[in-house]
Amino acid sequence: MAMERIDTTAALQALAHAERCAGRRIALVPTMGALHAGHVSLVKIARERADRVWLSIFVNPTQFDDPRDLAAYPRTLEADLAICRDAGVDAVFTPDAAQMYPAGAQTSVEVDELAAPLCGAARPGHFRGVATVVTKLLVAAQPHVAVFGEKDYQQLAVIRRLVRDLLLPVEIVGAPTVREPDGLALSSRNSYLDKSARASALALVESLRAAARAFAQGERRGDALTAEGASSIAAHPEVSVDYFAVVDAVAMQPVVDATPESVGIVAARVGKTRLIDNMVLGQPE
Amino acid sequence: MAMERIDTTAALQALAHAERCAGRRIALVPTMGALHAGHVSLVKIARERADRVWLSIFVNPTQFDDPRDLAAYPRTLEADLAICRDAGVDAVFTPDAAQMYPAGAQTSVEVDELAAPLCGAARPGHFRGVATVVTKLLVAAQPHVAVFGEKDYQQLAVIRRLVRDLLLPVEIVGAPTVREPDGLALSSRNSYLDKSARASALALVESLRAAARAFAQGERRGDALTAEGASSIAAHPEVSVDYFAVVDAVAMQPVVDATPESVGIVAARVGKTRLIDNMVLGQPE
Repeated sequence: MAMERIDTTAALQALAHAERCAGRRIALVPTMGALHAGHVSLVKIARERADRVWLSIFVNPTQFDDPRDLAAYPRTLEADLAICRDAGVDAVFTPDAAQMYPAGAQTSVEVDELAAPLCGAARPGHFRGVATVVTKLLVAAQPHVAVFGEKDYQQLAVIRRLVRDLLLPVEIVGAPTVREPDGLALSSRNSYLDKSARASALALVESLRAAARAFAQGERRGDALTAEGASSIAAHPEVSVDYFAVVDAVAMQPVVDATPESVGIVAARVGKTRLIDNMVLGQPE
Repeated sequence: MAMERIDTTAALQALAHAERCAGRRIALVPTMGALHAGHVSLVKIARERADRVWLSIFVNPTQFDDPRDLAAYPRTLEADLAICRDAGVDAVFTPDAAQMYPAGAQTSVEVDELAAPLCGAARPGHFRGVATVVTKLLVAAQPHVAVFGEKDYQQLAVIRRLVRDLLLPVEIVGAPTVREPDGLALSSRNSYLDKSARASALALVESLRAAARAFAQGERRGDALTAEGASSIAAHPEVSVDYFAVVDAVAMQPVVDATPESVGIVAARVGKTRLIDNMVLGQPE
C-alpha cells in the first residue's frame, strides 16, 4: 500500500474516524522533521503497537523561544518522506501553520509545575507551545498510541501529564534515546555541529555518565551527584551549561536522595547549538 | 429507551465510539445542573441536530473565582435527572471532580484576547476554568454538536474560539436566551433572589433595552449607547454594576460605531447574587 500524504486536519480526522470504526489501531509519531535513526526507532515501536503508523511533520513555531532558532531549524521534507516510506509509515501528516493555527488563534494549553523548571525556565513559553501543538495533533489524529523520544525527557513528562489531565484517550509511549557509537544522543540539531563542536558535544553524555558512575559507586545524595555531573561538564570551557540536575523521573524536581529511577538531565550550548540529554542513573547507557 | 446515567469518562468515551461508528450523531449539552427552562430549550435544539442527546452535569470548581460562590451554587441532582428524562435526554453524564481533574491535574486551556475583558476582567481565572472543563467535556464525549446558551455570551465566544483553535471536530451552536414574561433572563442563580431582589434584577434587561431603544432611534455611537445602558442601570442604587458595554459580537471589544449585530452586555450584583445578560442591539427581546 502506498504511503498516504495528508495536508489538512479535516482529512486526517476523516481517516482517523474510518480507521477507528474499522477496528484498526492507530499509532502517531509526532515530529518536527529532519528525521534520523532516532525517529525510525519511534516508528518501529509504533508498528509493534498498532495497525496503522502515522507520522506528523510540523515545525511548530510556538515552541521556539528564539525566532532565529526557528528560522534555522533544518527542513528536509523530501528526505523525510523517503525515510518514512522506507520505515513503512502508512500516512504522513504535513500540515502548514494555517492548518495548525487557524487565523486569529489565541488558545494555548499550559502545564503548570512540570513545565516550570529546567528547559521551561531556560526557554520561556517553550512547553506552552509544545503542549498546545501536541494537544492539537492528538485531537486531529485521534491515535490510540503516540510515541515520543525519551531524549526530550521533560517534554515526555509534560505530554504524559496533559494527556491525562485533558482526558485524551491515547496511550503515550516513551522510546529509548538512540545514540551514536561514542554516546552522542541523536538529534536533528546535531546537523549544526562541525567536527570540533561534534567532539565538544560529547561533554553532555559524559556528564551524565559521571553522575551515573558516582551513583554506581554508592553516592545517593542528589546534590553530590549533581556536583559530579556539573564539574564534569564544567571541564569543557567551550560548552556553556544551561543546567545539570538530578531529578525525580515523574515530578521533574531535584531529588535529595537519589534512587535508580532518578534521572540526570542536562542542557548546554555548543557554539550556538543548544543540546539536551538525560540518563536514568540506575540504567547508564 | 431508558435514560442512561454515566459517571466515568472511560464509559462516556466507549459509548461515544460506539455511537459514532454506528453512524449516529451525538449532541452534548454541557451544564452545571440546577436545570431550568433555558436548559430544556438547549435540549430541544440539540434534539433537532442529532440522533443522541447527552447532557452533562458538573459544577466545575475551577471556574469559580470565589469559593463561597462555589459552595453556595445550587445542586439539585434528582430534580435535574427528572427534567432530563422528561426532556428526552438519552444519557446524562455526572462525573465527580476526580474524573474531570485526575489527581495532580495541572493542565489548563487558556483563550487569550477574547477572555480578557468583561467577565474575564471581573472574575480572574473564570474563563481559564471554563475553557479547561469544556475542552475536557468535548474530548470525553466526542459530540458532533454542542449547544450552549447565548445568555453566557462571552463564554460562547470563548468556546467557539477554543474549539476552532484546538481543532476539536464539533459544531458549537448558540441557543437564544429564555426569559420570564417580564424579561428576566433565566439563570440558575435566580433561585438566590428574594421578591425584592427579583424586582431589582430587572434592571439588567432594562438597561439592555434602553441601549437597544436608543439604537432603534438612530444612535450609532458606541459610547453614547453605552451611556444609555449605564445610566439606566445606575438609576437602581440597590444594583451594583460590574460592567455595561456595547461590544463587537465576535471580538468582544467595545464598538466605536454600532451595527445591528453589536451586543449590549451587562453584569451586575443584586445583593450577593451576580447576574449577567446581553442583547443584540438590532434584535431587542
